[in-house]
Amino acid sequence: MSKKSAITPTRDEDYASWYQEVVKAADLAEHAPVRGCMVIKPWGYGLWENIQRILDKKIKDTGHKNAYFPLFVPLSFLQKEASHVEGFAKECAVVTHHRLEMVNGKLEPAKDSKLEEPLIVRPTSETIIGEMFSKWIKSYRDLPLLINQWANIVRWEMRTRLFLRTTEFLWQEGHTAHRTKKEAEVEVFKMLGEYKDFLENYLAIPCFMGRKSEMEKFPGAVDTYALETMMQDKKALQACTSHFLGQNFSKASDIKFNDENGKVEYAWTTSWGLTTRVIGALVMVHSDDDGFIIPPKVAPSQIVIIPVVHSDEVKDKIIKVCEKLKEDLEKVVYHNKNIVVEIDTRDLRGGEKKWSWIKKGVPIILEIGPKDIEKESVFMMRRNTLEKNSIKTGDFVKNITKILDDIQDQMYEKAKRHLDENTKEIFEKDEFYKFFTPKNIEKPEIHAGFAKVYFCLDRNQEEKIKEDLSVSVRCIIEDEKEEKKCIFCSKKTKSKVIFAKAY
Amino acid sequence: MSKKSAITPTRDEDYASWYQEVVKAADLAEHAPVRGCMVIKPWGYGLWENIQRILDKKIKDTGHKNAYFPLFVPLSFLQKEASHVEGFAKECAVVTHHRLEMVNGKLEPAKDSKLEEPLIVRPTSETIIGEMFSKWIKSYRDLPLLINQWANIVRWEMRTRLFLRTTEFLWQEGHTAHRTKKEAEVEVFKMLGEYKDFLENYLAIPCFMGRKSEMEKFPGAVDTYALETMMQDKKALQACTSHFLGQNFSKASDIKFNDENGKVEYAWTTSWGLTTRVIGALVMVHSDDDGFIIPPKVAPSQIVIIPVVHSDEVKDKIIKVCEKLKEDLEKVVYHNKNIVVEIDTRDLRGGEKKWSWIKKGVPIILEIGPKDIEKESVFMMRRNTLEKNSIKTGDFVKNITKILDDIQDQMYEKAKRHLDENTKEIFEKDEFYKFFTPKNIEKPEIHAGFAKVYFCLDRNQEEKIKEDLSVSVRCIIEDEKEEKKCIFCSKKTKSKVIFAKAY
Repeated sequence: MSKKSAITPTRDEDYASWYQEVVKAADLAEHAPVRGCMVIKPWGYGLWENIQRILDKKIKDTGHKNAYFPLFVPLSFLQKEASHVEGFAKECAVVTHHRLEMVNGKLEPAKDSKLEEPLIVRPTSETIIGEMFSKWIKSYRDLPLLINQWANIVRWEMRTRLFLRTTEFLWQEGHTAHRTKKEAEVEVFKMLGEYKDFLENYLAIPCFMGRKSEMEKFPGAVDTYALETMMQDKKALQACTSHFLGQNFSKASDIKFNDENGKVEYAWTTSWGLTTRVIGALVMVHSDDDGFIIPPKVAPSQIVIIPVVHSDEVKDKIIKVCEKLKEDLEKVVYHNKNIVVEIDTRDLRGGEKKWSWIKKGVPIILEIGPKDIEKESVFMMRRNTLEKNSIKTGDFVKNITKILDDIQDQMYEKAKRHLDENTKEIFEKDEFYKFFTPKNIEKPEIHAGFAKVYFCLDRNQEEKIKEDLSVSVRCIIEDEKEEKKCIFCSKKTKSKVIFAKAY
Repeated sequence: MSKKSAITPTRDEDYASWYQEVVKAADLAEHAPVRGCMVIKPWGYGLWENIQRILDKKIKDTGHKNAYFPLFVPLSFLQKEASHVEGFAKECAVVTHHRLEMVNGKLEPAKDSKLEEPLIVRPTSETIIGEMFSKWIKSYRDLPLLINQWANIVRWEMRTRLFLRTTEFLWQEGHTAHRTKKEAEVEVFKMLGEYKDFLENYLAIPCFMGRKSEMEKFPGAVDTYALETMMQDKKALQACTSHFLGQNFSKASDIKFNDENGKVEYAWTTSWGLTTRVIGALVMVHSDDDGFIIPPKVAPSQIVIIPVVHSDEVKDKIIKVCEKLKEDLEKVVYHNKNIVVEIDTRDLRGGEKKWSWIKKGVPIILEIGPKDIEKESVFMMRRNTLEKNSIKTGDFVKNITKILDDIQDQMYEKAKRHLDENTKEIFEKDEFYKFFTPKNIEKPEIHAGFAKVYFCLDRNQEEKIKEDLSVSVRCIIEDEKEEKKCIFCSKKTKSKVIFAKAY
């Protein structure tokens, strides 16, 4: 294999373009012929299906049920929200007509089909779910109400990037209502914990877990919690959020219940979500200059087998061996799901074929030719390290879950090292400013990483720092027992926060 | 239990209202606060999830991959189709603006955000998938291309009924492209066969499989095939379709490939789909005057356990026994999925609780009280027959899959009897007209059933029959070897068709 990398440009040359190229070369998704939207191709969608399967089990195992709410939200619902939510997002798709008509051979919205009230394509289902909750919840007996939805969401975006920012994206949104503040808080942390387990143990992405500052939180929430992850360019990406909404949302949506003594109370609510954006994170955390690398636990296929056929005579025999191996491997259960194996019999040159799988990031690539069959072995390449070795077929099958777990662990360890090495505890304002000032003016896209500091959370200071350095409070990771000095103003504070540039 | 039925009105009193009441009483879905849309509640969505799980496996096992295409279709894409598709549907949601603005305290579409080209919320993804196929397919090596999508779809409806006809609904749409006509035809029948297996062996709904007449087929197809099922009011409901599109669609979307000799050919394509409408069919085929009855293989829960607690002293003990039983039962795999058991500990009277589950249609209701624990038995009710008996707990657990299969079979047999008894082979035009003329003028909603007749498929005659009797050709079930006489005009024909009133 050539020394030249498969992806151009490389990470060092141009990180943003490298990202787009990896997505394209891995055949994950492409821009749709509709502005701002994407087509998620089978390899990318297979990844999302695995994310859904694993997360859906976690959501159900913690007592939630899935439901489905309508795509459209009446304008009046948003009007309610807009009136009292500062920073209400207004970029959305507005449906104004319900029929097309042909006028002089041209299709256009029929004038007489104009809607009395425009409909908005859901930018979140929050208001419509609130409306339903207010109907469904009458008594303490109806609580807790624990609902999740898998859906498509539209937020009009001017500048889009596949997975990271698109007009339409896919997500799950959990919405729950509880009798007490305590119970709702437990819910918020429970789901945050499930997300953390999912990120670290399935996506192999380490993260910081913490509370958002007033400036960065969801405006409707009392508190927003998030998981912050580090990309290879050392910028932060928020992987998901879990909101404690207090009684704000139940007051806006009139979600009330009769308690055991017949007293009417507002419910305590939460919401939490994760989107197809995590696929962008997955690409940016794990890929290298040869393309994508997928953690085995979420890979659409864990293994590809490439038959090495140099003459027609041996073809049938080799294919038969490959099929038998596929059959044996697919009987093996790997973390609650049978292993998936592809045999690539495409009419392509071997090198081209192998490189296509390297770029797609399949965890293990096997080559099987006449000599391997003679030796009863397979020629294996681990995508994450590109290590190659010949291994007895029997041993390979016997140890497959161990090998996959080992790859999964290596990927997590590598990402964790990157996070640790680029997270710096800083005790002085000057050092902080120096940390975030680009070292190389020609490459301002090379970032410093995460700074962990004591910060008093004063809003004016937070805004000033953002203005000066384009970095923000990603999350408040600890409320320490003892007070220390804020590194910016020396005020006493218990808050330790992560600052970083963010996607 | 009282003799009065749980659902008012009954099927005999008012079939259409009975349907709506069953859906409501079973807590499957309700009308959303958005005209024409529905909220699918957890019990209804659980059913859809099982339908998805089973069908998705069939789709994947036959070599298809899932992908995701954008929600919006540019108007120009439909323009192309509208120009050459007669009967092009124009009722759809039209997006014309991409931002809201606050004007005098009122939210409205921002004038300066008007789109140059309106976007349509997908009434099907056909045109957008066609566009992508034309990009993806270059060579015979790229074929067959076998893609499926699970998505939400919008077709503006003026008169809606939950599941049967709603502005937004959920479906899967398969789209495939092939090198040869033969291969595409095989695909069409393969998927029709998968649907038939799914309907009969999972939904316990018998059906007729056949080709649509020219008048009833999808206008863009060369041939449309469908499964036609019979509701309890003896009307037909089309459960799904599979279209052979020939090269029509590939010519419209420019889906071409280089064959092995370098010659450029148009691909042969198919499409096939099934929607949340089948939940409506499920309700109308299997429910009785006490509510819904769900076939065990697709039930969100197969079993509910109701602890019968008359005093606080025994409560803990009873709950413990119920939980142990749930644990044992949930270890049992029933048709590729672990059995799901609910324990209903709601603070409600026993009768009310039991009736709520009867109306929801859970296949088996167990009651466990102190006496049952003494006898080491459970008191079981089968929802489909309402039979009750006491059974040793050990025997129940040991035989659970047999009991569930028995219920599933009984449900299919009952539906099959209904279909057979109300399908009549007719050999004379007069008899045909008599068959479809309402017997009771006061109850025109009581229908005759299916008529199986030789029909020459003459379009004028078909239109006349529809006008006279409001019945249509549901499908052409057999192209017989020998010619017989058309019952309407005595012309020779090989076509045997099913006529019926349809939903």
